[in-house]
Amino acid sequence: MPLSEFDIIERYFNRQTLQRDDVKLGIGDDAALITPPAGQQLVVAIDTLVEGVHFPLDTDAEAIGWKALAVNLSDLAAMGAEPAWFTLALTLPHSDEEWLAGFSRGLSELADKAGVQLVGGDTTRGPLTVTIQVAGYVPAGEALLRRGAKPGEEIWVSGSVGDAALALQIQQQSVDITPADKQSLMHRLDQPEPRYRLGVALRHLASSCIDVSDGLIADLAHLCAMSRVGASLDYEAVPLSSAARQAIAIHSEYRELPLYGGDDYELCFTAPGERHEELELLGQQLECPLSCIGVITAELQLQCRDRNGEILALAKQGYQHFGDTNT
Amino acid sequence: MPLSEFDIIERYFNRQTLQRDDVKLGIGDDAALITPPAGQQLVVAIDTLVEGVHFPLDTDAEAIGWKALAVNLSDLAAMGAEPAWFTLALTLPHSDEEWLAGFSRGLSELADKAGVQLVGGDTTRGPLTVTIQVAGYVPAGEALLRRGAKPGEEIWVSGSVGDAALALQIQQQSVDITPADKQSLMHRLDQPEPRYRLGVALRHLASSCIDVSDGLIADLAHLCAMSRVGASLDYEAVPLSSAARQAIAIHSEYRELPLYGGDDYELCFTAPGERHEELELLGQQLECPLSCIGVITAELQLQCRDRNGEILALAKQGYQHFGDTNT
Repeated sequence: MPLSEFDIIERYFNRQTLQRDDVKLGIGDDAALITPPAGQQLVVAIDTLVEGVHFPLDTDAEAIGWKALAVNLSDLAAMGAEPAWFTLALTLPHSDEEWLAGFSRGLSELADKAGVQLVGGDTTRGPLTVTIQVAGYVPAGEALLRRGAKPGEEIWVSGSVGDAALALQIQQQSVDITPADKQSLMHRLDQPEPRYRLGVALRHLASSCIDVSDGLIADLAHLCAMSRVGASLDYEAVPLSSAARQAIAIHSEYRELPLYGGDDYELCFTAPGERHEELELLGQQLECPLSCIGVITAELQLQCRDRNGEILALAKQGYQHFGDTNT
Repeated sequence: MPLSEFDIIERYFNRQTLQRDDVKLGIGDDAALITPPAGQQLVVAIDTLVEGVHFPLDTDAEAIGWKALAVNLSDLAAMGAEPAWFTLALTLPHSDEEWLAGFSRGLSELADKAGVQLVGGDTTRGPLTVTIQVAGYVPAGEALLRRGAKPGEEIWVSGSVGDAALALQIQQQSVDITPADKQSLMHRLDQPEPRYRLGVALRHLASSCIDVSDGLIADLAHLCAMSRVGASLDYEAVPLSSAARQAIAIHSEYRELPLYGGDDYELCFTAPGERHEELELLGQQLECPLSCIGVITAELQLQCRDRNGEILALAKQGYQHFGDTNT
């Protein structure tokens, strides 16, 4: 007998351990009831993952549950917000208990880790689509925005970029790297680690911030457009994982993937030069390396140079996004 | 050339007239930034409409835009919340400008009317799915809940019920009523009027409340289950529109549709008997008739009797929902 919506909610989504003080009423009425802490602003983001578009048909349910929340927490991180609660709209072709158990496990694992509580949702029948809206808090006036970068400031990126894009290449064609490196790249694609701890820590350090979801160059271009500045990047300073270095050493055609590949969910931000050491220390404390990759310019263009001072051709392509209005 | 996500947002969703004071940052960054008014609690609901499941393939885009917001505002109404802001996750098979213009028109019309602002969204490619999460405010401690109904209290319902279910019958088979009655029923299905003004007005009058989305009996059963009470309904008191009366006079097989049909988005609530006249007056003031349809009982069952005192068989069927855990 197929599970009813009530059964699905009761079995897979209403048995969470986390009970936040600000959540006065969660799942179980017409709507949830939240008391936002005094003096805090609410930061709200919504993102959808569609099967066959954002993930392949055979993606592990647990990875989908994790990633659907992760991409939203990444948006909160970019605003410097502390994760608080979320709602889930889950559209499923049929009520597959094994799938639901996996999805709910992946979702809960990240939710518990980030301290964010599921407060409501809607389960409908249809093509597999997962929409999450997440909310977080930031003290009034302290949110990090895309605007705020000033010429002369340094440009930073967290962790490493290009891993998710390389993982997609591996899925699509044979890439000659070790199984351990493959696994490491696939993990970055399937279970990205949203940088919400870093986001909160950057509130008083960064002058602007964005998360790297569309690709480093594209997202930095969004940030520059909103700040009305340009950027000059040093390709050699762009942080790569050891797996990505291995892959690029063997397949030089992937050299520029770390600049253009999306789905990394790192933070790209700007800060005055005098914050340099403080930021390096912060990266060590959070076990999340921070790399200074360039400088903000008054000239309204985005350039990336390699060690020979050559402007990388693809950097100009990424520049097409420049000037767009962003979501 | 197909529209990009940026173009879609800029052309169809970023040109709203409404600018609320509590919305500090809307569309255009990684997330929206809201300052909830002091002393207010946040009420949050999420609902998805899927093409072919919640509306037929050929449904007018404007009606979809309206209804996707209406069903969410109805949940806020049931909590006594004042609508404030919403996010939209729109999954579209392709970027059809005519469709987008219609959808955006229907959405904006209701949003402006209800004073609720679109603060963020996500536009993705895939099977047509519309998810809206809406938030409203209610003074701390004043939210209407499903629990709170007490034996002896009166049961009320707003407007009329059964119209949307009759409209579905009309779509599926020939029903012998006038074109004007048909149109009136179809309008109820396509453009339901969420009762948010009534919801706010009921804060100090009603003891419990739910919106009628699954059907009067089913939703009243949810309310009774949460309040740990039963209900005795008078079928003759259940309010029908004149179009519904006409349809049922001709097709007596639809007699019980008003009890079981969903999608009406009226409010069903309970109140002490001494509030009776005040509630009738409120209905006149809001031009939204309120009908007293029965009484809450200590006995944990839900009965509906017709004028002969006969218990309607289908009332027992609706009773199956009784005791379920609700969303």
